[in-house]
Amino acid sequence: MEEMKKGLEGVVALDTKISYIDGIQGILKYRGIKIEDLADLSYDAVSYLLINGKIPGEAELSEYSRMLKENRRINGKQIEVLKEFEFGTEALDGLRTAISCTAHFDEENNHHTPDANKNKSIRLVAKFPTIVAALHRASFGEKPIEPMDNLSHGANFLYMLSGKIPTELEAEAMEKDLILSAEHELNPSTFALRIAASTLSDLYSAVICGLCTLKGPLHGGARKGVMDMLDEIGSIENVRDYTLGKLENKEKIMGFGHRVYKTLDPRARIYKDVARALAEENGDTYWFDMAEEIEHILYHEFIEIRGKPIYPNVDFYSAVVYKYLDIPAELATSIFAMGRVSGWIAHCMEQYSDNRVIRPRAHTV
Amino acid sequence: MEEMKKGLEGVVALDTKISYIDGIQGILKYRGIKIEDLADLSYDAVSYLLINGKIPGEAELSEYSRMLKENRRINGKQIEVLKEFEFGTEALDGLRTAISCTAHFDEENNHHTPDANKNKSIRLVAKFPTIVAALHRASFGEKPIEPMDNLSHGANFLYMLSGKIPTELEAEAMEKDLILSAEHELNPSTFALRIAASTLSDLYSAVICGLCTLKGPLHGGARKGVMDMLDEIGSIENVRDYTLGKLENKEKIMGFGHRVYKTLDPRARIYKDVARALAEENGDTYWFDMAEEIEHILYHEFIEIRGKPIYPNVDFYSAVVYKYLDIPAELATSIFAMGRVSGWIAHCMEQYSDNRVIRPRAHTV
Repeated sequence: MEEMKKGLEGVVALDTKISYIDGIQGILKYRGIKIEDLADLSYDAVSYLLINGKIPGEAELSEYSRMLKENRRINGKQIEVLKEFEFGTEALDGLRTAISCTAHFDEENNHHTPDANKNKSIRLVAKFPTIVAALHRASFGEKPIEPMDNLSHGANFLYMLSGKIPTELEAEAMEKDLILSAEHELNPSTFALRIAASTLSDLYSAVICGLCTLKGPLHGGARKGVMDMLDEIGSIENVRDYTLGKLENKEKIMGFGHRVYKTLDPRARIYKDVARALAEENGDTYWFDMAEEIEHILYHEFIEIRGKPIYPNVDFYSAVVYKYLDIPAELATSIFAMGRVSGWIAHCMEQYSDNRVIRPRAHTV
Repeated sequence: MEEMKKGLEGVVALDTKISYIDGIQGILKYRGIKIEDLADLSYDAVSYLLINGKIPGEAELSEYSRMLKENRRINGKQIEVLKEFEFGTEALDGLRTAISCTAHFDEENNHHTPDANKNKSIRLVAKFPTIVAALHRASFGEKPIEPMDNLSHGANFLYMLSGKIPTELEAEAMEKDLILSAEHELNPSTFALRIAASTLSDLYSAVICGLCTLKGPLHGGARKGVMDMLDEIGSIENVRDYTLGKLENKEKIMGFGHRVYKTLDPRARIYKDVARALAEENGDTYWFDMAEEIEHILYHEFIEIRGKPIYPNVDFYSAVVYKYLDIPAELATSIFAMGRVSGWIAHCMEQYSDNRVIRPRAHTV
């Protein structure tokens, strides 16, 4: 046995065809295609690409979208049951329970054939937004809103959340958010999911394993952390004192730095453009200006202190996008999961297709 | 980055104080104490040892047992909700949903202080058997049986399952089973749980991550596989044909071989003694004799074919023990989880106490 690498940093745990990260040059590809070229597709197309390994043709995409739309509706019971519970609960706890319940409504839950897994994949991708929106509305006593079939995956989610049909730009922003959240190599939730899959556990259980891991504030929970921070800072005038204070106390500033990227995360650049466009459409650049000020101050302070800049990560401008989309902070992790589920499913299938149980050793001290 | 080791075989992923395996010599220790010396303690004492790092004194043990007993009762709603669901479901799916629901009844669900985590630990260990028994009874329309406070953790579980107070030997067998299942270093479910914990996700989510991973037939699900195999073979006369047939077709025989142990798993030896004692008390050695015949044939056939013997793993004689305890095969994985939860909690706490996000890399092909 070899020397222990804490957090398995830099250890190659498996082969994948699903995505590629070059953290030095700031490159991210899904199935060989750069994220910049994927961001203008529909979420349906990117979901298809991740799960099936190729960009869908026109007929394939239209069939995939049709199946997703057909499966958007949920049996309300998995939302109803949550009302029975005593304590208010974070959105992701509710989502974890609701997805676990969804498995009990899926006739193929414990069927492990490729066909059954394909069917379950479509149901999972299709129902995630409906469940997230319904859970959120239930949390303040509102009835769920039925999905609207002529809206895209992302636009329909925004509609089910608020009852308002989003503007074209808002719909596009939501689609891009889900695309940018869809996949990121062996991040912790995907790695945990692949371990579950490696024991040949079922697709729902593997996805729930991903959800349980995504929840942590050092992973999917970070996006909520940025939104909370933006609220805490409150105005552009406070940015300098807040950030310098954090630096002085050696406290972490949410939304900056990444284990893998040593330059600007390519997703962060796209999110920033989306945030700017939303701010301009909105006619109120309050959140965007504040975020940009944080970015600038930290960039220069880090050069001063450490001799190299620090960059916003994927969570930073995505939080600003959510602000403009009127998405409450407590939903940020659930929406991350809505996007990521396609990547999770792809990794689960890849693990099944050439399996070896993932079982390292520990060093006993 | 280095060469990829499929399944992370032999890779040391982290340091632990919780357990130690020497797979060559067949040694397993929890917190420095050999499993042979732990098997005669109570499950409460071993649970305390795993979570708190030391064998409890008399007063500590009595207080720990008191707290466990006090927390055995559950709010029936997390079982009730499962009746609403459309499709019959494997026991572990129900358990996953029920534990996820239990979090919604825990006021400290999203409190992350050491005290809150301690309280949640006790609730989880205490309520697991009640939930497993209640779910099982609900699956054939029976009401749950209230826990009985003067029974041990294991004996009370058997009582809640059937309504019959177990014999002394049966109670002891159940306690030993839970002790032997309680911990096993970086097995897949524990590793997945530690990844969830490393994102600072909460204790319930981490445990659910463990459950989702344990479910797989290449992990906790294997015990059910052995029970099903014993049923399939049906009688001692069929053993030779069955096992030789499997070998000829190069099919896996459930309950044999282990990634880590190259000799007899020390837990298997203890399980075999327990199974023999139960068979003798029962006056019917049917299952035991059949199992021993499988063991003998495989041992010698493997020497013949591969030049080295194969040994039963932990799942093999535990399945025989379950046969004598009248435990249905579909509960085997849930009962495994009932024992393992103490080890999971210990690993979750250890990960929290000196954390680094577990995030390896993939090699893109």
